Amino acid sequence: MSDPTAPADTAAELLAAARALDDADPLRAHLDAFVEAPGVQAYLDGNSLGRPLAVVPERLAAFVREDWGTRLIRSWDEQWMDLPERLGDRIAEVALGAAAGQTIVADSTSVVLYKLIRAGAAAAGEGRTEIVIEEGNFPTDRFIAAGVAAELGMELVWVQPDPVHGVTVDDLAPVLSQRTALVVLSHVDYRSGALADMAAITARVHEAGGLILWDLCHSAGSVPVRLDDSGADLAVGCTYKYLNGGPGSPAFAYVRRDLQPHIRQPIQGWWSAADIFAMGPQYAPTPGIRQLLSGTPPVTSMLAMQAMLDLIAEAGIEAVRTKSVSLTDFAVRAADELLVPLGVRLLSPRDSALRGGHVTIGHPDFQAVTQELWGEGVIPDFRFPDGIRLGLSPLSTSHEETLRGVIAVRDALTR
Amino acid sequence: MSDPTAPADTAAELLAAARALDDADPLRAHLDAFVEAPGVQAYLDGNSLGRPLAVVPERLAAFVREDWGTRLIRSWDEQWMDLPERLGDRIAEVALGAAAGQTIVADSTSVVLYKLIRAGAAAAGEGRTEIVIEEGNFPTDRFIAAGVAAELGMELVWVQPDPVHGVTVDDLAPVLSQRTALVVLSHVDYRSGALADMAAITARVHEAGGLILWDLCHSAGSVPVRLDDSGADLAVGCTYKYLNGGPGSPAFAYVRRDLQPHIRQPIQGWWSAADIFAMGPQYAPTPGIRQLLSGTPPVTSMLAMQAMLDLIAEAGIEAVRTKSVSLTDFAVRAADELLVPLGVRLLSPRDSALRGGHVTIGHPDFQAVTQELWGEGVIPDFRFPDGIRLGLSPLSTSHEETLRGVIAVRDALTR
Repeated sequence: MSDPTAPADTAAELLAAARALDDADPLRAHLDAFVEAPGVQAYLDGNSLGRPLAVVPERLAAFVREDWGTRLIRSWDEQWMDLPERLGDRIAEVALGAAAGQTIVADSTSVVLYKLIRAGAAAAGEGRTEIVIEEGNFPTDRFIAAGVAAELGMELVWVQPDPVHGVTVDDLAPVLSQRTALVVLSHVDYRSGALADMAAITARVHEAGGLILWDLCHSAGSVPVRLDDSGADLAVGCTYKYLNGGPGSPAFAYVRRDLQPHIRQPIQGWWSAADIFAMGPQYAPTPGIRQLLSGTPPVTSMLAMQAMLDLIAEAGIEAVRTKSVSLTDFAVRAADELLVPLGVRLLSPRDSALRGGHVTIGHPDFQAVTQELWGEGVIPDFRFPDGIRLGLSPLSTSHEETLRGVIAVRDALTR
Repeated sequence: MSDPTAPADTAAELLAAARALDDADPLRAHLDAFVEAPGVQAYLDGNSLGRPLAVVPERLAAFVREDWGTRLIRSWDEQWMDLPERLGDRIAEVALGAAAGQTIVADSTSVVLYKLIRAGAAAAGEGRTEIVIEEGNFPTDRFIAAGVAAELGMELVWVQPDPVHGVTVDDLAPVLSQRTALVVLSHVDYRSGALADMAAITARVHEAGGLILWDLCHSAGSVPVRLDDSGADLAVGCTYKYLNGGPGSPAFAYVRRDLQPHIRQPIQGWWSAADIFAMGPQYAPTPGIRQLLSGTPPVTSMLAMQAMLDLIAEAGIEAVRTKSVSLTDFAVRAADELLVPLGVRLLSPRDSALRGGHVTIGHPDFQAVTQELWGEGVIPDFRFPDGIRLGLSPLSTSHEETLRGVIAVRDALTR
């Protein structure tokens, strides 16, 4: 095993194992539900952009011909006005563990983050002047939080967790105090894939009297989320990753029901008004989750995800998670056997209970390797400075496809 | 002519006139470029939701199969990253009279308004503490401006123009002063269709040392806009009206080039960062118009408008305006002859030089009438409390269709 090109029998053994796992996969029939991608050997970036379902091209075409082209403006009354809540409730039911009336599909993730961080920071109460955020949180979370802190005259407090294992109650405890207004954390870390303990961390933040905003971008649709059970206050999540909504499909916002009367978001557009068509002189916000809206919802960008939500509902989010764990465990095993001997490091937790739906590996040559792989139809994600992220969207990815990706990385490193 | 049901020969004369105008219309071939709408007798709401072009269903389907489904994440590098600017520049070239590098497609109109009002109000300079807005401006403009004024500790100053003829330099002059930070006006009034004198008003606001933000929602694509020539500072506009982008397609933002280094928008998401993929610790805005972005652009919602922009470019915006004037003049004539005798009032300027692409008429029964018409496939827009708005999208509407709508209103009123 000291041969750095990895012996053929290891790869052959892994292939047999991958095929056995695929044969035993109760969700394997769903692999055929997606648009075929000629020339793609392995798509390992479903956590950046999920693949479209095969029904989507014709559904979008029919939407243009019928709902938009023939019903025309009447479709607003007939079906689009309440689409943001209907779709929000559907996501909540299928993937978030949240009762109806707390989730709405609105703007881009960044705009929703802005609304919720502003609303949450302001709602926290007298003397609470600090927004706590993790150093390794996704850039837009950090940038938006920094902007809001500056405009509200609040302070940004950083948490510096272990970059592989992610944030824990112990990391957080020392910075929480009676000055804590809002804590902004990712449920699954966008780099390492570390899965945070939502219930324990939420409880600890509440103990300190603060509110918490969970970013679910990398968990919604692959890791079962238990928003209601955990007592989470606010959440935002992406729909173009594991919910396969298409490039730039809008994000969802969650606000715990009993918090809704106490928040106020800053972008008070007509869609958040109590009576949208009264067009009266003064703005008054509507009660409930619809207050999170601002402008006309991006209907065309809200269509594709509906098929994926149906598919996740059919499979069941717990079964999706089981498959996800199987895929990431297998990716770790394949990386251990084929890539670690070449100097590759595992940058994700080894324990699947502490990991979301992707696995990140590191090597100084990975920027060049990624470029090469993309040209061959093997498509992982590169993360600066030296990470390759293997995003294994559970319903559209097989173990064999995962192995093809790892073997391609090996081949590129040994060329 | 005292018979309130209007004599048949008037309708017959109008029909002959409509057909003659359609025969002479140099743009009539484009009427066939749109998706057919079975059962629709007259679509008179193209200024709320423009009709899809016939090429759009297959283009969207192909986008899902190929750009999204097969190129997958690679499409960001290959074509989507700069789509917001490319599309912005195309709108600017075809419809706005603006040079490249000043226009970008971003979020909903309301979110773009929030960004630009915040940015403009803050950029106006020391001691300038007033945001001037028209009483009859579209609700979201007023609501957002009120919210921004409250959060910045500024004052909202109202202009009360004539509701039919819209805002003039004379209306505005008395409220402008060295306290004026930003003036927010619509180029075409959403109710009356009144067309404001952009150049004269902009010059007067600049004379007072303020900045001006033009809302182009009801002019972009039907009235030639001359942003660069008029010296306008900021503008926002809708793409689902006369640019036929589909329900909820994103708005564009315009910032005059030499103002760009002096503004800062509040929603500092990763897409507005100088180096989007560096994912560094600190936010630094990118220079140029891209600083107006926040999150991932809603690509799927940005596709349909491209076909309409090509069609407007082919026709030429001046020819589109000529047709628009012909349609609204004809609608006024038909209303005069068929509806005024029934007690209907014209709520739009009679002089086409002072009018945009729609005509509004008033009658106490119009709420009930609109419901009835929608059921018959005659689709105007109802505007509270008693207005019917005839939105005559120039490239998809004929004079005969306009007349069918007016006759249907007459028939409903006389039943």
